[in-house]
Amino acid sequence: PQSKLPALGTTIFTQMSALAQQHNAINLSQGFPDYDGPAYLKERLAFHVAQGANQYAPMTGCAALREAIAEKTALRYGWQPQADAEVTITAGATEALYAAITALVRRGDEVICFDPSYDSYGPAVELAGGVMKRITLQPPAFRVDWSQFADLITDNTRLVIVNTPHNPSATSWQAADFEALWQAIGGREIYVLSDEVYEHICFTAQGHASVLAHPQLRQRAVAVFSFGKTYHMTGWRVGYCIAPAAITAELRKVHQYLTFSITTPVQLALADMLRHEPAHWQTLPAFYQAKRDRLVQALAASRFEVLPCEGTYFLLVDYSAVSELDDVAFSRWLTEHVGVATIPLSVFCADAFPHKLVRLCFAKQDATLDAAAERLCQL
Amino acid sequence: PQSKLPALGTTIFTQMSALAQQHNAINLSQGFPDYDGPAYLKERLAFHVAQGANQYAPMTGCAALREAIAEKTALRYGWQPQADAEVTITAGATEALYAAITALVRRGDEVICFDPSYDSYGPAVELAGGVMKRITLQPPAFRVDWSQFADLITDNTRLVIVNTPHNPSATSWQAADFEALWQAIGGREIYVLSDEVYEHICFTAQGHASVLAHPQLRQRAVAVFSFGKTYHMTGWRVGYCIAPAAITAELRKVHQYLTFSITTPVQLALADMLRHEPAHWQTLPAFYQAKRDRLVQALAASRFEVLPCEGTYFLLVDYSAVSELDDVAFSRWLTEHVGVATIPLSVFCADAFPHKLVRLCFAKQDATLDAAAERLCQL
Ligand SMILES: CSCCC(=O)C(=O)O
Ligand SMILES: CSCCC(=O)C(=O)O
Repeated sequence: PQSKLPALGTTIFTQMSALAQQHNAINLSQGFPDYDGPAYLKERLAFHVAQGANQYAPMTGCAALREAIAEKTALRYGWQPQADAEVTITAGATEALYAAITALVRRGDEVICFDPSYDSYGPAVELAGGVMKRITLQPPAFRVDWSQFADLITDNTRLVIVNTPHNPSATSWQAADFEALWQAIGGREIYVLSDEVYEHICFTAQGHASVLAHPQLRQRAVAVFSFGKTYHMTGWRVGYCIAPAAITAELRKVHQYLTFSITTPVQLALADMLRHEPAHWQTLPAFYQAKRDRLVQALAASRFEVLPCEGTYFLLVDYSAVSELDDVAFSRWLTEHVGVATIPLSVFCADAFPHKLVRLCFAKQDATLDAAAERLCQL
Repeated sequence: PQSKLPALGTTIFTQMSALAQQHNAINLSQGFPDYDGPAYLKERLAFHVAQGANQYAPMTGCAALREAIAEKTALRYGWQPQADAEVTITAGATEALYAAITALVRRGDEVICFDPSYDSYGPAVELAGGVMKRITLQPPAFRVDWSQFADLITDNTRLVIVNTPHNPSATSWQAADFEALWQAIGGREIYVLSDEVYEHICFTAQGHASVLAHPQLRQRAVAVFSFGKTYHMTGWRVGYCIAPAAITAELRKVHQYLTFSITTPVQLALADMLRHEPAHWQTLPAFYQAKRDRLVQALAASRFEVLPCEGTYFLLVDYSAVSELDDVAFSRWLTEHVGVATIPLSVFCADAFPHKLVRLCFAKQDATLDAAAERLCQL
């Protein structure tokens, strides 16, 4: 059949993980931990399965989980969403992003996004018939020029997609960035999709700034979160989104025909975990900062130049001193010949991104990080 | 925000299950069992979770599961798909339907479907910018008039959506129906989406006819299946689809941005189950036929007229002798005043469907069925 997404192949994550496996390389490409989540959470899943909680969950998500999320949001961001009308459980953050884009973007609508950007935004906008307007941010700071942003707004602008802490740049926004966004949007009917799946992996002094902490902006925003990242269970595929009731009603219309509902016993186990240890997330910054620092220190002896990492479990390194290859060729070479799989940055950019940067995932056991660094230090 | 699906509310399943709960009614509306799946399957899920199989599965699905499905398909339909290129694991059959429609239907394409039809087809086609061309089939036989079908085909026809055994009519196709479809399509580039989630719940002498058993048609078909129905685990949310490599490549492009991948330990447990008991599905027709017959017999003493049921776990009843209300009002009244929740048929039809029919789900314990029948017999 004629392709509706002719320019697209398989995601870079699938490609690089497959290449890593093929060459038996240390896989620092696709973002997932090589350690397991909390034992309690695993026990609760087994418990609910054994108890027979195996039929359809409500389309919006299990009430216990939505309520626990609402309370956690209050604890975390000082504002509590309505569990019934503003919180929706999805098949990972991926489905939340897709459903929000599909619900909000009409044919011909313009969507502003900042490149490098996560690879699912573009295809979702394209399938909705929207037009992407991209601003390429430059390393190492990846700062937004708000006057450049304002110039991009037209009468057709419908949605702005933001992501903080940012994958793959590892930078993070502050509250002032959301305020600048709010000022730039002004009174227009423009919505904001805020991808905050790394909300708990932020190393700045101010901590993660959420769109939910901005009282005006959150009235036109869909904020997207992930349990996979928070509990080290990327394979469980449960995420959620928070949006005002009117937006939530529209995105649920899409969600109910996309996946209908999410794995019931997994939802109940997550609800138990949130109640059991409501501030588990407070442990994450220190946990990941130790891993980041370990990798950074180990690479100090290498010819790679490490970029600042304010958040996410990714570290960018500049390999200019190591190779002349472009980033796609270099990360392929690195996998095949050095045995370390990474992600090239340019795949996250629609326009030219002629930098010599690759992304390393440090959600790995110390031994994995040490082994990878040892190989990289030999270059 | 302006709605992209302005005509749509919450699915009838969500509405009726909520109403049933509110009125403490016996819930024969939304299709799900009130009994649990195989103990072995549950144990295997707990096992894989405990073992730490909790990170991303491959985007296409776990190899063990795709291979077990390919073998089961050969056993069941005499033809084995390629596990790597033709089988894709999805977030329930719902996501497979949505991904197939999104991948195949371009703006302005026409999609032929037979009403009554499952409620997710229409919104998926609408969001893809396609145009639904509907043929309303009439009770009690719900037979397709193939010359009427041929008249509906135009140069813009892109997809035909079929469903057998059919929800909600409980009728089922025979091989001759697929042959008639093949003849009607002729040499045109028209694809077929075959929703076969009730493949193992078929009571006809010939048994379920799959599009996969038609050597020509399967070369342009996406066949959709559900583990929820087969293993009594509607809440686990794993389905799959089988399609030729070229179509699979396109639908995976959508799938990878819709949900990316499916719950890993659930996939591994399902793979174990398929290997452990490769012909478990052979037990299902007798299991469900006993339930169907029990409900039919119990209703013999009522003023409801039972329609033939060839497949699915749904039974249609005509309530003409009981009430003058239309079907939506009647099923609401039945829930509120009699304590039995059902699904009205007209909600599955875009055009008028002035029949006095409601759908009862008999995937219930005998005691549930008996209690519901007792209430219905009092009318
Ligand atoms: C959904 S697979 C990709 C995981 C991820 O978010 C990343 O590696 O950036
Ligand atoms: C996805 S909820 C609806 C279950 C079902 O298929 C039905 O009741 O028809």
